Amino acid sequence: MLEEQFKRATELINRHSDILLFTHQTPDGDAIGSLLATAIALENLGKRVVPFCADSVPEVFSFLPKIERVENKIGFQSQSVVILLDCQDFKRTGIDEKDFKILSNRFNLKEIDSIVIDHHPEENKGVLQYTSASVNIIEPKMAATTEILFELFENMKVKINKDIATCLLTGLITDTGGFQHSNTDPRVMRIAAILLTKGAHLNKIIRNIFQNKTMPSLKIWGRALERVKIDKTTKAAVSFLNRKDLEECHATLEDLSGVANMLSTIPEARFALFLTEYEPRKISGSLRSEEYKGVDVARLARRLGGGGHKLAAGFEIEGNPEDAFKIVNREILTDI
Amino acid sequence: MLEEQFKRATELINRHSDILLFTHQTPDGDAIGSLLATAIALENLGKRVVPFCADSVPEVFSFLPKIERVENKIGFQSQSVVILLDCQDFKRTGIDEKDFKILSNRFNLKEIDSIVIDHHPEENKGVLQYTSASVNIIEPKMAATTEILFELFENMKVKINKDIATCLLTGLITDTGGFQHSNTDPRVMRIAAILLTKGAHLNKIIRNIFQNKTMPSLKIWGRALERVKIDKTTKAAVSFLNRKDLEECHATLEDLSGVANMLSTIPEARFALFLTEYEPRKISGSLRSEEYKGVDVARLARRLGGGGHKLAAGFEIEGNPEDAFKIVNREILTDI
Repeated sequence: MLEEQFKRATELINRHSDILLFTHQTPDGDAIGSLLATAIALENLGKRVVPFCADSVPEVFSFLPKIERVENKIGFQSQSVVILLDCQDFKRTGIDEKDFKILSNRFNLKEIDSIVIDHHPEENKGVLQYTSASVNIIEPKMAATTEILFELFENMKVKINKDIATCLLTGLITDTGGFQHSNTDPRVMRIAAILLTKGAHLNKIIRNIFQNKTMPSLKIWGRALERVKIDKTTKAAVSFLNRKDLEECHATLEDLSGVANMLSTIPEARFALFLTEYEPRKISGSLRSEEYKGVDVARLARRLGGGGHKLAAGFEIEGNPEDAFKIVNREILTDI
Repeated sequence: MLEEQFKRATELINRHSDILLFTHQTPDGDAIGSLLATAIALENLGKRVVPFCADSVPEVFSFLPKIERVENKIGFQSQSVVILLDCQDFKRTGIDEKDFKILSNRFNLKEIDSIVIDHHPEENKGVLQYTSASVNIIEPKMAATTEILFELFENMKVKINKDIATCLLTGLITDTGGFQHSNTDPRVMRIAAILLTKGAHLNKIIRNIFQNKTMPSLKIWGRALERVKIDKTTKAAVSFLNRKDLEECHATLEDLSGVANMLSTIPEARFALFLTEYEPRKISGSLRSEEYKGVDVARLARRLGGGGHKLAAGFEIEGNPEDAFKIVNREILTDI
């Protein structure tokens, strides 16, 4: 169904030799995997490519091939086409106003050729905030942007080598939660099989992204898990960490990613509430639930000025952890 | 390469209408998945089948189709063929001497038709301890016994329905650690894709086997993780739990499965040592390491009278946790 778009994207890429690649800020495995896979594929076609990401690439992805090529300062040269990967809007790329102005002036963004390749639901008709992309390849049925890229590359007759395969598989693995989320469908599995045949380094991906737990992260997970309680009225699995916990374990907020998810899987919990005092009197709250539990945590988060998705949402409040918990209790736990 | 064996197994199955299925004791997902997939497949071919497992089936597998059919008392009737699944030896099935005698007398085991289907390395030439199987389908290159069964069923033209697909996928998922172990190859992925197309319940498998953490298990994991220390000389990641910990968290030994594995992935640890006082003065020790770390933990376990594999081994010692740790320290930690 995307064949027409693939054809147009291929024609457009064929016409240009200097290409600027963007992905979204706070990049995940699908963002970085898409960026590098596209950079390597286009370079192998003889293009000059600048892969750009406004934020520095998280340490866990440092094993990826050509990771050193990712730029976080825009050095514009003679690019004549822009590709947005795993996002649909320049706002999401995190480039600042100054750079955006340079980009606008240099390229006359309203007219520059641009391609959007993304698997998130379409945000606005017209898509790009500052221009309309020449080609939109937006397919929310795909589990990852690298899944779309795999099909595009096949269509373009790009030879998928070991490096490209590893980058594409990284996107598939991170966006399906290691083939555990419900977006893991037969197509994802078939593509994973082909990528493994092409030499994708499954072991490296798994070891770097899912394993390699650091001591601080294990210790802080330990504290968070040991404190879990089930709220009797609401059946929420509740846990918290304060400044002192983070300091004593030498842990950062990044180490805590995944804790709330794990709490939400407790069978007797309807959802999870996880509070972290990440700076003195600044509390970040994570809410998670599971599809089959039928709770909309985004609705709860909005009551505290936060937001998110039905199964994963968050909010920020000020105060010490005890006060924060009282507020949350009043606003959320009595609403459920 | 297994085609000849598949053909002989098919001929043998076609000749008999009453079939007794065995798997190993302390069954895992591949054992139970193989048992049920085979039972359903053979029943759909019009056979009468008794699926037997000496131990009761762990609660996490209770979601599997036809799980209620698994017998743990042998009620012999008129079976004339025996199939051993995910093991090669009657000893591993855990049937007691009395039952084995009945089985022997009833069936004249030396002569009964029998089929062994297993992916573990061949233990002895001749295979079955008490008899020689008529057909041996032993393929250690396969990630799971259910992977062999998938190929056998294709060969037998068994229609793989939703229930069979779920049972087969369960074996694939558990024996590849959720597609994360290095035995996850393109064939595993391709079969997983086909099983999903046939309606296998990926979500149910994941939710029941990898998620659904109970409160006692989260709390006890929390304690074990928070206590982890890296031994300076040996770079072992060491943690321990005593009786009181288990009691306070209402946890059982089963809740601790996986802790040692997680400790072994700490990048600065060469291997993991995890001690649990499961009964007063009875300590069970788990040793784990990772392929790329180059430590043979079975060698360490043998010094304390235990055993196991290169990357996963264990031992038992008596004493209070402090004494135990001193012994381990002297025997293992100075040897590395």
